[in-house]
Amino acid sequence: MSATRTRPRRATGIEGPVAILGLGLIGGSLARELAARGLEVWGFDADESATRDAYRAGVIARVFDGGLRALEEARTVVLAVPVDAAASLLERAAPHLNAAALVTDVGSTKRSIQSRAAALGLSPVFVGSHPMAGDHRAGWHASRRGLFDGARVDLCRSPETTPDAWKRARALWRAIGAVPAERDATSHDAEMAFASHLPQLLSLALAGTLASRGIPRKRLGGGGRDMTRMAASSVTMWAAILEDNAVPVLDALETCLAQLGALRGAVARRDRSAIEEAFRVGNGWSQDD
Amino acid sequence: MSATRTRPRRATGIEGPVAILGLGLIGGSLARELAARGLEVWGFDADESATRDAYRAGVIARVFDGGLRALEEARTVVLAVPVDAAASLLERAAPHLNAAALVTDVGSTKRSIQSRAAALGLSPVFVGSHPMAGDHRAGWHASRRGLFDGARVDLCRSPETTPDAWKRARALWRAIGAVPAERDATSHDAEMAFASHLPQLLSLALAGTLASRGIPRKRLGGGGRDMTRMAASSVTMWAAILEDNAVPVLDALETCLAQLGALRGAVARRDRSAIEEAFRVGNGWSQDD
Repeated sequence: MSATRTRPRRATGIEGPVAILGLGLIGGSLARELAARGLEVWGFDADESATRDAYRAGVIARVFDGGLRALEEARTVVLAVPVDAAASLLERAAPHLNAAALVTDVGSTKRSIQSRAAALGLSPVFVGSHPMAGDHRAGWHASRRGLFDGARVDLCRSPETTPDAWKRARALWRAIGAVPAERDATSHDAEMAFASHLPQLLSLALAGTLASRGIPRKRLGGGGRDMTRMAASSVTMWAAILEDNAVPVLDALETCLAQLGALRGAVARRDRSAIEEAFRVGNGWSQDD
Repeated sequence: MSATRTRPRRATGIEGPVAILGLGLIGGSLARELAARGLEVWGFDADESATRDAYRAGVIARVFDGGLRALEEARTVVLAVPVDAAASLLERAAPHLNAAALVTDVGSTKRSIQSRAAALGLSPVFVGSHPMAGDHRAGWHASRRGLFDGARVDLCRSPETTPDAWKRARALWRAIGAVPAERDATSHDAEMAFASHLPQLLSLALAGTLASRGIPRKRLGGGGRDMTRMAASSVTMWAAILEDNAVPVLDALETCLAQLGALRGAVARRDRSAIEEAFRVGNGWSQDD
């Protein structure tokens, strides 16, 4: 059985079959890109209708059930489920990964999955991936071609990761137009707490604040709409991230609460110079883009 | 002297000459729309190069100096400067507004300018306007046609405002494609503290937090970039808004700090049900758009 080939150009450096576990926004979009490049993609999703639709669309050439035995023939394996599910899925998949030359994931935190891979003896073939792509939508029906165009993908390896697996991980993301960059898993997670998880919490707190006063989203201007877009994000993905990365997230929250407290003080005191200083910092940071 | 007419269709219900004091993003864009509809627009800006460029572009047909005597011939007068400057400008303009059938402004707060108009005896011809348009850019060079297309404009009148002035204010905004809606000035300001001023402060606090950790904007994904766009906003405009609307803004800040504090507690306790509840509220609010 082979995948529908919408573009006959073959990707180099990726070996099929590629098994993608989870066909949501990220996994589904990855499946579309790889299938379009002539790779044989196998997949499954806990949502049966997603699996069926992906198969009917010709994106996945083989559906395998939760037993995961079919993984024994896969050369490239991608976990594309929420970070907590990825850990247990990796455990269930581990006995069937003998043929895999690369095992990777797409989660927003990288430290715990790397530890889990090490505990399962998978370090030689495991590379953690975090594509900076996606939005507040979720599921197979949100998946699409082009999602990874020019997107940065942080890649994390352990000292035990083989050069071969590393090369394959870079080739995988490059082939679909993304830009891989090596990161240490711990510093990745610490930075993401500030750059991604904190913005998510601020957006949620703002939405909660507006909801508590009965102010609907349609009353907002462009700025307020930008600020609340992430409040529509999927709790399934985010609850797992916040739990997994709790310590760095709390650091980010405390830092931001201190900044907000200072702004509150400046507004309360009508302290124009303190307000001006906050804008000076914000404007300067914005320009350094 | 007459304005350059890029579109010969005349706007109905607006009487020229229209004097626009302040040719920044909002005043400049308004000038462009009115001139394009055949109205004679007069203008000035504290930034001489903005005034000169607007004149050279054929958008304003007459430049008047800060003496404001030329206002004596204007039938429609628009204050398009930051809210603190609008108050003092209105005071300086008041002796010259005998011919004006409509005096309005475009500020983000409406209570204090309405009080000032009342104190100056201008209530019969004064209608406060707040167009929900604009972005983090500022100045004449950011001004453009189309800025007000479909934009809501909150209009506030006092009991002394004449039906004629009210009709003119509605006609002015409708003519350029905006959607005017009547609001009480006090409730407008209270709502804006939550819907606009709080998002601005959150964006600034987030930028300050990221700056404090040396995380540049380019490390952010789409969500984080959305959340920090307002950090590039002009302090000139915002310091005045925050000062003028300090009491409602502090209410909004306190409410949001309580929400963030609750989220911090949920993350610290690994309290998944509290996290889920916050997302349930945020998701529900997002859908009600």
